Amino acid sequence: MENQTIYFKHAPRIVATSTIAGPKECAGVIGRYVETALADDTFGESTYEKAECKMLTHVIGGAIGNAGLSPSDIDMIVSGDLLNQIISASFAAREFPVPFLGVYGACSTMAEALAAAATFVDGGYIRRAVAATGSHFSSAERQYRYPLELGCTRPPQSQWTVTGAGAALVSREGDGVKILSATLGKVVDFGITDVNNMGAAMAPAAADTILTHFRATKEEAGAYDLIVTGDLGALGSRILKDLTWEKGLDISANHVDCGEIVYNVIEDEFQGGSGAGCSAVVLNSYLYSKLMTGSLKRILFVATGALLSTVSSGQGESIPCIAHAVTLER
Amino acid sequence: MENQTIYFKHAPRIVATSTIAGPKECAGVIGRYVETALADDTFGESTYEKAECKMLTHVIGGAIGNAGLSPSDIDMIVSGDLLNQIISASFAAREFPVPFLGVYGACSTMAEALAAAATFVDGGYIRRAVAATGSHFSSAERQYRYPLELGCTRPPQSQWTVTGAGAALVSREGDGVKILSATLGKVVDFGITDVNNMGAAMAPAAADTILTHFRATKEEAGAYDLIVTGDLGALGSRILKDLTWEKGLDISANHVDCGEIVYNVIEDEFQGGSGAGCSAVVLNSYLYSKLMTGSLKRILFVATGALLSTVSSGQGESIPCIAHAVTLER
Repeated sequence: MENQTIYFKHAPRIVATSTIAGPKECAGVIGRYVETALADDTFGESTYEKAECKMLTHVIGGAIGNAGLSPSDIDMIVSGDLLNQIISASFAAREFPVPFLGVYGACSTMAEALAAAATFVDGGYIRRAVAATGSHFSSAERQYRYPLELGCTRPPQSQWTVTGAGAALVSREGDGVKILSATLGKVVDFGITDVNNMGAAMAPAAADTILTHFRATKEEAGAYDLIVTGDLGALGSRILKDLTWEKGLDISANHVDCGEIVYNVIEDEFQGGSGAGCSAVVLNSYLYSKLMTGSLKRILFVATGALLSTVSSGQGESIPCIAHAVTLER
Repeated sequence: MENQTIYFKHAPRIVATSTIAGPKECAGVIGRYVETALADDTFGESTYEKAECKMLTHVIGGAIGNAGLSPSDIDMIVSGDLLNQIISASFAAREFPVPFLGVYGACSTMAEALAAAATFVDGGYIRRAVAATGSHFSSAERQYRYPLELGCTRPPQSQWTVTGAGAALVSREGDGVKILSATLGKVVDFGITDVNNMGAAMAPAAADTILTHFRATKEEAGAYDLIVTGDLGALGSRILKDLTWEKGLDISANHVDCGEIVYNVIEDEFQGGSGAGCSAVVLNSYLYSKLMTGSLKRILFVATGALLSTVSSGQGESIPCIAHAVTLER
């Protein structure tokens, strides 16, 4: 398919958002914008998985409340997360009497969920949907890598999974940030097998989706105040800028990466933040605020995901990746 | 939300399907309808996970070929599976230069993917999508339960995960089976904690979605030649019929369950088939054939999923479930 970009005729809008994040995240630049700052990353729960689910439940309810609505006003929850069988999203959805569309796009989930929610709303099938995702450093570490108790050394190309969650309420009516189009990504695999180097694995997928988007829309990079990737980190962002530049698209002047800006990198965060919660928190706090107050007018939000599992890596597979893009405008 | 049912104005149609299944599955009634019958459930691969992925790749390509199309004619693959991080779907999608929407609904995936594909197509956002899913007995056993080598005894309330995959090509134009409406389900949890008793856990979710569908459409059960659930099995189907009957809806005359019909139950299949591949294979082979030849005119396809993980069960959680319904008519 040459043209992967879909346009939303009625420009569904994000009328409210909600975010929550852990202490390490809130120490960074986004701290001032996050709605609920956790002093304790267990959120009062007995396990990290339950804490992750509680964060997601909190922001789904928060976005509904911030819009002045109740759960019965919502027609669909579109959500997913990084845990096996997306239990954070499924168990969070259990708390709401609302139809649930479970999605999986690893760290690309925020963009995937927004694109799906916007499609259902724009087509007139439903009035309102909540798109949400999150992640937790400690649940991700023990599922994807090693038990924290083992105290493994982290390599310098690694990133730090964001403890946090974000939700956006997408509505056919109301005042907010418009969703103009979505470019859903293909699965791109450049043969990277280093599971500590997600930025390098995901950068080609981000490049593919961004290049596809600009080919379809015939826009210049300057048409966007920001081209925001999800969690490529510092190394992945450099690779992305090289890959797009090689294809004749210079995004260096207006590219930022949520993973690069989420932390004050002072210890083991190395390349920056990652995880489904990374772009979800930055979009729904910092970026949404800048769009609503007019500091930003138009952004391309490109969340990226690495579609590996411990089993696929253990069986010698490389890391297939994906990136979905959404155009947001105030 | 009172009305969970969405209606497709342009009735996107399933213009082609493709199915594959293992030897045990093809020994049953569906054997005559399955397109590719495997003599060897490894499909020539070195691991069960790779075999599962290869089956899914096979039917996605098969559905495209059976429609007389090539991958470049397809605008989206909507797929998911039971493995952690839906690696079967993600790695299958890697083989096609087509945008990928990853979904997770456990064994409800076939209905979820059809509903999402139909929404994108009906709304005019894309022309054609492939909805697909699958499962493999041996990969599911070792991920969700025990290594096969352990030779664990199976309890009589258990089901047998179908080794197979099915794909449906959903198109705005062409001759085929029309998708008229979809009722996306809420997450329903009746507190069942026995991970060997999925039928009992999922039956309340199926009942909720079916009752919601009939309330919205104001139809009688007799408006459908069949009300087909995904993989409740024999015990779950009995519970479903009781639960709907208690609420004033008698579906006993026209209810069938894919899990009940997929096997000649002769050894350890007990309550019948389960897994995302169960309803995917039965729908896209047997039921699609009956619809296309006119033996069936109109069915309500209700795939059910149990949204647990080994971690959630290990942490003492009950099993949240979901069911999505799609109305299909020739």
